Amino acid sequence: MKIRVINPNGSAGMAQLLEATCQGIKAADTQLSVIHLPGSVASIEGAADGVCAAYHLLGAMRQGQEEGVQGVVIACFDDTGLDAARELASGPVLGIGEAAMHAASMLSVRYSILTSLPRSIHIIERNMHSYGLQRRCANIHAADIPVLELERDPAHYLRLRALGQQILRDDRSECLVMGCAGMSQWAQRLQEDLGVPVVDGVQVALKWVESLVQLGLGSSKSLSYAWPRSKAV
Amino acid sequence: MKIRVINPNGSAGMAQLLEATCQGIKAADTQLSVIHLPGSVASIEGAADGVCAAYHLLGAMRQGQEEGVQGVVIACFDDTGLDAARELASGPVLGIGEAAMHAASMLSVRYSILTSLPRSIHIIERNMHSYGLQRRCANIHAADIPVLELERDPAHYLRLRALGQQILRDDRSECLVMGCAGMSQWAQRLQEDLGVPVVDGVQVALKWVESLVQLGLGSSKSLSYAWPRSKAV
Amino acid sequence: MKIRVINPNGSAGMAQLLEATCQGIKAADTQLSVIHLPGSVASIEGAADGVCAAYHLLGAMRQGQEEGVQGVVIACFDDTGLDAARELASGPVLGIGEAAMHAASMLSVRYSILTSLPRSIHIIERNMHSYGLQRRCANIHAADIPVLELERDPAHYLRLRALGQQILRDDRSECLVMGCAGMSQWAQRLQEDLGVPVVDGVQVALKWVESLVQLGLGSSKSLSYAWPRSKAV
Amino acid sequence: MKIRVINPNGSAGMAQLLEATCQGIKAADTQLSVIHLPGSVASIEGAADGVCAAYHLLGAMRQGQEEGVQGVVIACFDDTGLDAARELASGPVLGIGEAAMHAASMLSVRYSILTSLPRSIHIIERNMHSYGLQRRCANIHAADIPVLELERDPAHYLRLRALGQQILRDDRSECLVMGCAGMSQWAQRLQEDLGVPVVDGVQVALKWVESLVQLGLGSSKSLSYAWPRSKAV
Amino acid sequence: MKIRVINPNGSAGMAQLLEATCQGIKAADTQLSVIHLPGSVASIEGAADGVCAAYHLLGAMRQGQEEGVQGVVIACFDDTGLDAARELASGPVLGIGEAAMHAASMLSVRYSILTSLPRSIHIIERNMHSYGLQRRCANIHAADIPVLELERDPAHYLRLRALGQQILRDDRSECLVMGCAGMSQWAQRLQEDLGVPVVDGVQVALKWVESLVQLGLGSSKSLSYAWPRSKAV
Amino acid sequence: MKIRVINPNGSAGMAQLLEATCQGIKAADTQLSVIHLPGSVASIEGAADGVCAAYHLLGAMRQGQEEGVQGVVIACFDDTGLDAARELASGPVLGIGEAAMHAASMLSVRYSILTSLPRSIHIIERNMHSYGLQRRCANIHAADIPVLELERDPAHYLRLRALGQQILRDDRSECLVMGCAGMSQWAQRLQEDLGVPVVDGVQVALKWVESLVQLGLGSSKSLSYAWPRSKAV
Repeated sequence: MKIRVINPNGSAGMAQLLEATCQGIKAADTQLSVIHLPGSVASIEGAADGVCAAYHLLGAMRQGQEEGVQGVVIACFDDTGLDAARELASGPVLGIGEAAMHAASMLSVRYSILTSLPRSIHIIERNMHSYGLQRRCANIHAADIPVLELERDPAHYLRLRALGQQILRDDRSECLVMGCAGMSQWAQRLQEDLGVPVVDGVQVALKWVESLVQLGLGSSKSLSYAWPRSKAV
Repeated sequence: MKIRVINPNGSAGMAQLLEATCQGIKAADTQLSVIHLPGSVASIEGAADGVCAAYHLLGAMRQGQEEGVQGVVIACFDDTGLDAARELASGPVLGIGEAAMHAASMLSVRYSILTSLPRSIHIIERNMHSYGLQRRCANIHAADIPVLELERDPAHYLRLRALGQQILRDDRSECLVMGCAGMSQWAQRLQEDLGVPVVDGVQVALKWVESLVQLGLGSSKSLSYAWPRSKAV
Repeated sequence: MKIRVINPNGSAGMAQLLEATCQGIKAADTQLSVIHLPGSVASIEGAADGVCAAYHLLGAMRQGQEEGVQGVVIACFDDTGLDAARELASGPVLGIGEAAMHAASMLSVRYSILTSLPRSIHIIERNMHSYGLQRRCANIHAADIPVLELERDPAHYLRLRALGQQILRDDRSECLVMGCAGMSQWAQRLQEDLGVPVVDGVQVALKWVESLVQLGLGSSKSLSYAWPRSKAV
Repeated sequence: MKIRVINPNGSAGMAQLLEATCQGIKAADTQLSVIHLPGSVASIEGAADGVCAAYHLLGAMRQGQEEGVQGVVIACFDDTGLDAARELASGPVLGIGEAAMHAASMLSVRYSILTSLPRSIHIIERNMHSYGLQRRCANIHAADIPVLELERDPAHYLRLRALGQQILRDDRSECLVMGCAGMSQWAQRLQEDLGVPVVDGVQVALKWVESLVQLGLGSSKSLSYAWPRSKAV
Repeated sequence: MKIRVINPNGSAGMAQLLEATCQGIKAADTQLSVIHLPGSVASIEGAADGVCAAYHLLGAMRQGQEEGVQGVVIACFDDTGLDAARELASGPVLGIGEAAMHAASMLSVRYSILTSLPRSIHIIERNMHSYGLQRRCANIHAADIPVLELERDPAHYLRLRALGQQILRDDRSECLVMGCAGMSQWAQRLQEDLGVPVVDGVQVALKWVESLVQLGLGSSKSLSYAWPRSKAV
Repeated sequence: MKIRVINPNGSAGMAQLLEATCQGIKAADTQLSVIHLPGSVASIEGAADGVCAAYHLLGAMRQGQEEGVQGVVIACFDDTGLDAARELASGPVLGIGEAAMHAASMLSVRYSILTSLPRSIHIIERNMHSYGLQRRCANIHAADIPVLELERDPAHYLRLRALGQQILRDDRSECLVMGCAGMSQWAQRLQEDLGVPVVDGVQVALKWVESLVQLGLGSSKSLSYAWPRSKAV
């Protein structure tokens, strides 16, 4: 099956990191393509960045649909442009934010999210209320590290681990969600160090999109996610 | 004071209608500009249209801020790009959707919204949950009339009136909200015919932006609506 | 237009403070009257005080309606007697509590309220749940200063400022709401010192009542706010 | 123990009906007094009536506390003045509305309320949100019969029964709550005819106040229900 | 009337403690039986324990119904097997958890729960969301003392008192709920020491079941709590 | 990997149906075992049945853990004994009810559930509130067909289809969830006939458990799902 992972910002480096993660876990029969969006913002830090990235995502979605892509992962924890993307696809489209939150809800009764910047908290919270998932999320925290820094400097791991320990204790949480695609690389190590499940939405979303495609389940094309109307000019 | 009303789609005709409405109610000392966004979609019908409109809105917001615009109204009931727009402004930025919902909540304990298309209901509901305003809204209904049709054919009034009467009865509602900028023109007539307040967000948003500017209240620049970060390339 | 601001307690001094605030911001064509309620409690500190004030408010509302008052502001942050007052009016009636909360919801995604006494927190929270506005309010705090003290002793400003700084940090809030009419006088100064919007409900409510009257929008007289039934004796 | 049932309106006739109901079920050692409030409104139909009744209730509460009353029932389904009354009492104070809702929540997972007038629905709903009890209540309906009519004309029973049957079916409810003190007299008969529990708040509240007094549990005098502050004049 | 208090674990010692508490407060005409469930777990500490206890409860409920038991109290704060028990009874069945939460909601506007073990918090919270009672509960805390320890070692009182004081302060709570049947014995003493109502669900549930039986109110046998279906084998 | 699907009732026939469904979709390297619980109830219709099934599930979970089972699906839409089962497992344990609801939330913004019996609605709703997933679920409906009938009589398909069409229209839903394991067999056919995604929890849960095992994610063993405490006898 043809699955596409879209990094909605313009960073080729992050797309390479994502590709490394995804190639290691994809199903044998998955034709995987991991792309970034040249022309989009360098990183998505806030709502204006998100609008710009979502705009570039539209083109990538239309092209993917034409190319026969059967399932899509949007690899930004903000689930950038998710509703719009579903309007443009017949197959399943999952954001890594929603996938991680749904998974954490089935592994624990109380989880916390650790994202990059304070300004992203509102965006994640807004999504969470749209999905209706706020019940099991204890809190959303920001490491206050810019997205591209996360990716570049492995030394940030120690700070993430210390934050993770404090968050679990203060929030009485039983599971930690990596709230940024740039943190994917540390999920496994952090899980070993913290002793609770640490959820990376990139991995979960990829596997779940594969399974939905296999089961013949795609975005509903009735009402909210119907194909866009053509404009009578 | 300099106030700008932005019709986030590309329809000059709708901007003219908005201008007519707004000129009649603006304060004496308000320098009003009503603009549309050439290059944006012809009308906003769904999430993909909304992303495209929001993208073009970014430029208009940046330009407005440079020109010294002190307050902004986003004249689409979807509140297209609202969070992003606030990141780009120091003054207040109000969507006509939120303004109408907030006003209806202070005129009645139970109101209904009548919008254009079924696919818009999710977008409005998602906003409503983000604002936390779902408590007093009984229901959101769609007239199933495309946005540009609403604007062009006055004969649609009779259908809106019949729907309004049915909605008030079925929802036990005490107030009706016009859920599309293209319905503005009929708010007053509908109020007379229905005998309950009929709220047009365009008018409310314009007057409230004026008052917030007068009182020195603008978008908070702390955390969520802080100015966008510049990217270290 | 005839607008009345009602201080629902019996303090003439507070009414004078309110009048000073309101005269400075009212529209040119507004005939403003600011009254207090002789015979009401000296200050509203709790639910029993509130019942007493609401009882005296009923007479003032009936008299106002007879005198042709077109819009009313209830100048206590508890929104004392608000539902009852709307039953007795054809025009809009706004409480300063609700006005401030609605405004703060459009200037930020997360605000905190600072009121006078701990016992007022429940009353404000109860209103908030009735309006359905709890989503964006991080927390309600009490300065633990009696209402009349606030009014009399300007030295309290330093305590309010220190509290405000702490609240913004602890609540991760982006906006502060003055939770007592007696704090109006310090809103602007506090805004300058804190660097986030500081909302005074008195000012917002006055301007919004003016705008609703101008737009022909009043309290719905259908169902919940219908005129009181005459009793068949 | 000294228990007082207060009919917060001015109707002696309704107080007599309440007395008949209560005398039949009170504990042997309960000294019961059932009073009405001369000077209050003839019946409570809406928020303005409620404010007037609550005002007269204050005096009755103060007098009861002086006389050594140990527990109080407020016998209006609107729970008129409940918070204020608790400030003025050391013992438990229960409204018949809350008592009925709490009881119905423990007898079924989904109940409906049938009250007298449409305008009362908002008041009950507002209370319900303050108590946080909306989860198990399917809906609130109005028989559209004025309170005093209910009391005077037994022929209304047939209408209530027909409504009850329809409500249970439409709401998929498992229990019916009598939403007006004037309906108390028909609760038992209706329970037999409908085949589901029919809850009369008057009876439940009386028995529960007795039990709370016996167990030494009264209104918390910390924070929200603390004794009213004396005013420094 | 025949009332049965069921300690759903296998501890005869705890049943004796419960019997002592209940005999002192039951109505004169109540035929009280307090039983434990031999074969059940020694104490209920988590969901697996709860399933085991609920299984043994089924038999006890069937037997009670045959013996003419008219009302039942389930004496574990987890309200173990409550929904299942109601399917097997015509009379009222109350859990001590729900009874305590409902009572605390009528004595204060904000209460806290103190239970035994951290792992019980989720179970109580899950019940609370099912009942819809989360609004007035500030927080649930665990003393981190195993259930049987609580019962055996009176020295734990000092720890409970210190925790109670801290909880009231930190949560701004006005009432404390004993979140474990094994804490019943200390409720009165703690109420005297803390100066706010301290609610023991065992006592409240017993008195309320008595009152519901007296008033002819039992578990609804329509829909959710209907008698179990016989299986066509 | 070793995956076990547990039909928590005593029906070998239903286990065979489940096995047929699961063998067709499992991953190549999955060692699948599908079991039923001899001694459990014949079908799970209500809470008492659920307690009995959960009790028998405990043993199966303990045995599975010993045998090295790495992931478990509980194949009853009630998610029978889910919390208890997670206490007894190190790997992921998914109920088919939760899996279906989570999946439907990512394929549409508004879905409806169609289950077998009216008495099951409360159980599903209670789970939904525990998971915090009620936001996107429009309604839960019952076909009023006993579980074992569903399995035996293929003629029920026509009734399900007619109900499905009516539900989508009345609820304005965009997706339908099969609310009973016995409906699995018709999911695909129904999806073709209705034109919207029809979600069968059995299939989704199996694929998602496989993916969670592959990614190294299991039930959190901290706090709520910690291994049961051993009892100090």
